[in-house]
Amino acid sequence: MVDKKLGGAGLRGQSAGETKLCTVGKSGSGLTYCGYDVSDLAENATFEEVAYLLFNGELPNQAQLDSYKSELATMRDLPQALKEVLQRIPADAHPMDVMRTGASFLGNLEPEVDFSEQNKAANRLLAAFPAIMTYWYHFSHNNKEIDCVTDEDTIGGHFLKLLTGKTPSELHRRVIDVSLILYAEHEFNASTFTARVCASTLSDMYSCITGAIGSLRGPLHGGANEAAMDMIQKFKSPEDAKEQMAGMLERKEKIMGFGHAVYRTSDPRNVIIKAWSEKLAHEFGDTSLYDISVACEEYMWDTKKLFCNADFFHASAYHFMGIPTKLFTPIFVCSRLTGWAAHVMEQRDNNRIIRPSADYIGVEPRTVTPIAQR
Amino acid sequence: MVDKKLGGAGLRGQSAGETKLCTVGKSGSGLTYCGYDVSDLAENATFEEVAYLLFNGELPNQAQLDSYKSELATMRDLPQALKEVLQRIPADAHPMDVMRTGASFLGNLEPEVDFSEQNKAANRLLAAFPAIMTYWYHFSHNNKEIDCVTDEDTIGGHFLKLLTGKTPSELHRRVIDVSLILYAEHEFNASTFTARVCASTLSDMYSCITGAIGSLRGPLHGGANEAAMDMIQKFKSPEDAKEQMAGMLERKEKIMGFGHAVYRTSDPRNVIIKAWSEKLAHEFGDTSLYDISVACEEYMWDTKKLFCNADFFHASAYHFMGIPTKLFTPIFVCSRLTGWAAHVMEQRDNNRIIRPSADYIGVEPRTVTPIAQR
Repeated sequence: MVDKKLGGAGLRGQSAGETKLCTVGKSGSGLTYCGYDVSDLAENATFEEVAYLLFNGELPNQAQLDSYKSELATMRDLPQALKEVLQRIPADAHPMDVMRTGASFLGNLEPEVDFSEQNKAANRLLAAFPAIMTYWYHFSHNNKEIDCVTDEDTIGGHFLKLLTGKTPSELHRRVIDVSLILYAEHEFNASTFTARVCASTLSDMYSCITGAIGSLRGPLHGGANEAAMDMIQKFKSPEDAKEQMAGMLERKEKIMGFGHAVYRTSDPRNVIIKAWSEKLAHEFGDTSLYDISVACEEYMWDTKKLFCNADFFHASAYHFMGIPTKLFTPIFVCSRLTGWAAHVMEQRDNNRIIRPSADYIGVEPRTVTPIAQR
Repeated sequence: MVDKKLGGAGLRGQSAGETKLCTVGKSGSGLTYCGYDVSDLAENATFEEVAYLLFNGELPNQAQLDSYKSELATMRDLPQALKEVLQRIPADAHPMDVMRTGASFLGNLEPEVDFSEQNKAANRLLAAFPAIMTYWYHFSHNNKEIDCVTDEDTIGGHFLKLLTGKTPSELHRRVIDVSLILYAEHEFNASTFTARVCASTLSDMYSCITGAIGSLRGPLHGGANEAAMDMIQKFKSPEDAKEQMAGMLERKEKIMGFGHAVYRTSDPRNVIIKAWSEKLAHEFGDTSLYDISVACEEYMWDTKKLFCNADFFHASAYHFMGIPTKLFTPIFVCSRLTGWAAHVMEQRDNNRIIRPSADYIGVEPRTVTPIAQR
């Protein structure tokens, strides 16, 4: 077999399969899920509708949606054994390690016995992730065992109530919902590709999702909104932001939340979350963090022609809703799980094990020298 | 950017990167680790030397090996919190879910804080996996809390003593060691590729290994030796084996342990483990399972020109050593961890995020219909 040489490292620009789920940047800056533009979905649908769309290929009608949300609501609580595992994870653990371990452990208790249970397994994780994250957070940080069940109608509202202990405002419910829609799916990114490679061995849903979480944990993938938050919190004013960013650029420091591996001129998700961040700033009663963010956006465009990606205004938006910075990437998990699981299902539908080759650049054949003579 | 179309599904025969670690089938049936033929290593080295080789590029001298083995020996015990997690995994859990969860949970307690700790993290998992597997096994199956420390000199001997509670024979020590060498590394197979995709986001070692375990769990990847065991145990004699296999072939049932995605005429690991299986059969005092295995090998070659891969004679070899069938694939983890971790280190050395593209085959652009009209 002659190996074909790929053009670039990291399989960039190389097709590694087919998908019905998503297009990225096909028309310059567009992002579509199952044919729907993400901005259309963010305006005219809810996250549960998007999850249903990704798992089933079509948006639900009202009866289907009601039934789906009821099913998810019954799956929110955590088994006692999982709570006891989360209790044993220290407060200084990486929150993504908590999500990875929660998903993996749940796979022991409620295995996906065969692929007929794939929707059940995906929905179980979708319903349980908000509690996995917040149960650990409150137990380790506040020494508090929270009740993992709420009367909130949506996954986003449920998460906010578990986190804050308070009934969220309509605005907060809507923004977290939009955020979950924006992060839900993004074609063959590294974490989704991880899930597909795992799925291609015909492994179970929990293994695929656990692996994907591990990949999203990497600073080149998830975590950009956390890094953006850390940065903008250091800026005292829009003027200070521009001054400090000039210094960062001069020192060639990496500035997170700008540019994209696929998009070239803008990220279609930015304009959406930016508008919601502005609304939140006004509700919050202090727009300075928003104003600083806008100054950053202008400065990076003017000096470097770099645009904000989905992550940048997520930082201020999440902050205005009272979400601790360290939980930003775990929220990404709660959302992207839908894309990961949909890709696992799609891989299974037309599977061949993903097993590429490598170019050997190591030493020539040699023989083992007896250890006494080494 | 124009996407290049790859020749086949599953990236088969496509180069996805460079490696110094391994060649597979470059000279027909050869397998080399860092330039050394696997049969040379299996005859003239030990598993700890091979682990050292994969992590450092060169075989150790005696002083280096002694120091490395001493370091590993200090890392064998499990933290109390991890034992308590393993206690909460039921006896009917998939043993690979246990390994995946053990690796993931350990990452919370002893994180790889930065890449300078990569060898420490890899060695910790290498030393701890035998106890993760056997502590859970004895607790859930025999209601017994084992001591996770032994005075055995090697990882293989340590595992056998934890499992059986008895000091293993020299023959058993040698065979498990050879087995760990044979399974240590195999280029860009699906689990290793999973680890590299995860590493390419600059995620931590525990995430990469956890993801790889999830991929190895799939029946198209790990697990073939378990399936082979299940099959040969059903055969009453060499004649019965041939008769029943004829029926299986006629019914187009999949027969595990034969053929290979890369090798074309033989698997270089088969002749090695087969010879050890024969020795074990004689020590065991009943060669019938070995004789049946040989009959299977002859029959598959004569009728289908299919050869035994590494997994087939591993089944009888492990069985003769008293290893329960459900622990076969977890042993694969104890071994392949070395290859996974070496590939993670190599990926980090010259990294670009692995982010391929996909060919879109979904519906055309469409707009969201209000839910009341769906």
